Amino acid sequence: MNTPKVNILYSPGQAAHLSRALISTCHTRPLLLGGLQVVTSLHPTQANLPPLRPRTFTTTSVARLKDFFPAKETAYIRQTPPAWPHHGWTEKEMTSVVPEHRKPETVGDWLAWKLVRICRWGTDIATGIRPEQQLVRFIFLESIAGVPGMVAGMLRHLHSLRRLKRDNGWIETLLEESYNERMHLLTFMKMCEPGLLMKTLILGAQGVFFNAMFLSYLISPKITHRFVGYLEEEAVHTYTRCINEIEEGHLPKWRDERFQIPEMAVRYWRMPEGKRTMKDLIYYVRADEAVHRGVNHTLSNLDQKEDPNPFVSEYKDGEGGRRPVNPALKGTGFERAEVIG
Amino acid sequence: MNTPKVNILYSPGQAAHLSRALISTCHTRPLLLGGLQVVTSLHPTQANLPPLRPRTFTTTSVARLKDFFPAKETAYIRQTPPAWPHHGWTEKEMTSVVPEHRKPETVGDWLAWKLVRICRWGTDIATGIRPEQQLVRFIFLESIAGVPGMVAGMLRHLHSLRRLKRDNGWIETLLEESYNERMHLLTFMKMCEPGLLMKTLILGAQGVFFNAMFLSYLISPKITHRFVGYLEEEAVHTYTRCINEIEEGHLPKWRDERFQIPEMAVRYWRMPEGKRTMKDLIYYVRADEAVHRGVNHTLSNLDQKEDPNPFVSEYKDGEGGRRPVNPALKGTGFERAEVIG
Ligand SMILES: [Fe+2]
Ligand SMILES: [Fe+2]
Ligand SMILES: [Fe+2]
Ligand SMILES: [Fe+2]
Repeated sequence: MNTPKVNILYSPGQAAHLSRALISTCHTRPLLLGGLQVVTSLHPTQANLPPLRPRTFTTTSVARLKDFFPAKETAYIRQTPPAWPHHGWTEKEMTSVVPEHRKPETVGDWLAWKLVRICRWGTDIATGIRPEQQLVRFIFLESIAGVPGMVAGMLRHLHSLRRLKRDNGWIETLLEESYNERMHLLTFMKMCEPGLLMKTLILGAQGVFFNAMFLSYLISPKITHRFVGYLEEEAVHTYTRCINEIEEGHLPKWRDERFQIPEMAVRYWRMPEGKRTMKDLIYYVRADEAVHRGVNHTLSNLDQKEDPNPFVSEYKDGEGGRRPVNPALKGTGFERAEVIG
Repeated sequence: MNTPKVNILYSPGQAAHLSRALISTCHTRPLLLGGLQVVTSLHPTQANLPPLRPRTFTTTSVARLKDFFPAKETAYIRQTPPAWPHHGWTEKEMTSVVPEHRKPETVGDWLAWKLVRICRWGTDIATGIRPEQQLVRFIFLESIAGVPGMVAGMLRHLHSLRRLKRDNGWIETLLEESYNERMHLLTFMKMCEPGLLMKTLILGAQGVFFNAMFLSYLISPKITHRFVGYLEEEAVHTYTRCINEIEEGHLPKWRDERFQIPEMAVRYWRMPEGKRTMKDLIYYVRADEAVHRGVNHTLSNLDQKEDPNPFVSEYKDGEGGRRPVNPALKGTGFERAEVIG
């Protein structure tokens, strides 16, 4: 028989380096593989990640909360898998993330930094800072956070089309970032429905922020990436404080054993069994924010028109060591000379 | 030793069904695989596709044409692989594509169809219909064709963020479509640089078309997808006529053995050796257009707010037969009852 085979064995540590696509294809879309026999298995010495085949997460239904957008199921279709599957995080990677700050060097940097401080101040007023408001605040912030990546990706796409120039690989990273932010939003939405006032605020804020990002990216993509880098510094701060508050017992609701995080979060980040508390979830989200921070600071350091995106590039033989590894742990971004040459 | 392994054996026929991500990861990004040993090989009974490892395509440099945007290479970085790698096409799939027309049924359909006829008429005037203008005409059309998918994807993304609702898997297909169109554009650009007048026309046309698509998608995504479906019917027509003209000898330049298609096209579509003429290239492009045609007509048939995207969905056990296979061969799209239930 000529049945082709795909055999995959990997460890969670390597999973983070393995391009997202490879693991996730086998993970989420076994039915798409046509006549292929697919065998995927976690490396036997590792036992910490959930199994690769889709399964029902019996321990993760959200208790005592109305699920107001249940998993979409129609007569024939069960679900849609994630557009950009998450590669997952190891515990070491997540606990290594720390708040960092890149010192403004240019006038543009300084402008971006001041703008972020103003946004921060406005958000504190709009969403309040009382602990019981945490989730609503997260929802507000994430609904905004999904905008810049999409705007930047779209504008670079349109630029490439109308100027008849190549893009050098930036678009996919920008769009993936915006998708990841949207997953943050939908995860928090599964746990809390904001009131009418907040919903209106979200509508208005998107209108303002979308237009601001659109103009800002047309005027100076460099400063805009720096601005997003600083925004993400704030995000890492916010989630770090949240982790501390949970640990110090200020948020007893989230330490309650009956409080369960949504199934979609467990699936999306592939959270291992026994590591599915609210605190664990915030660790995953924070690591994502740290990636956005490192990526945007790096992109801001590059030549916007000419430089390839180092995060998706193929390096020359012997130059593989220049490849930026885990931007989450490089809070100030990679300098141009480090990754481009 | 604990070195994990990835072994992949597949045939070109199955490659089309294999999710794009799986093959392409191994194909284009061997260096991204970290500590993984990767072994990829075409199934031994098949010998028609180029090998899976990146190679230099010695036979495909564009002869006698200035390459005015050469592959981006910096001190450390060789290249950026495609954001959405192409799954390739089998010869049978490509030759099975035929011009098809979906009869307008609703008032919206009729409106969309009439609008496409008007656009067609405008384009004929703007780009001329003399055979020697073919490439410039293709460039103009493809620079426009990359707009609707991006606009639709962005608007659905923003809608999901501000309405705090899930998207049901549509965004990725729309963005992938716009990426595919941009690859068409860049491929043709490698063979011909339009003059200043055409470049200005392209700038202006994007300005008009982007705004028109933006408004139209806000007003009625259903009619807009139908409109794009009809546009793609025209694209299939145009490329079919081009294939016929090449076969009838009206375009001798492209039959000349010294005329070579660009390396990026060979890489992107993974065109097999000996099947890399201009006619072959147009066959690949036409098959892509036929996908857009089938996908957009199908999306127009669905409930825009509630229905999952059937092209990326996981089907329930026993309902896998409802999965839409190769939309390129279903020119009028799948009806809602066929794929959703
Ligand atoms: Fe976020
Ligand atoms: Fe973020
Ligand atoms: Fe096209
Ligand atoms: Fe198309």
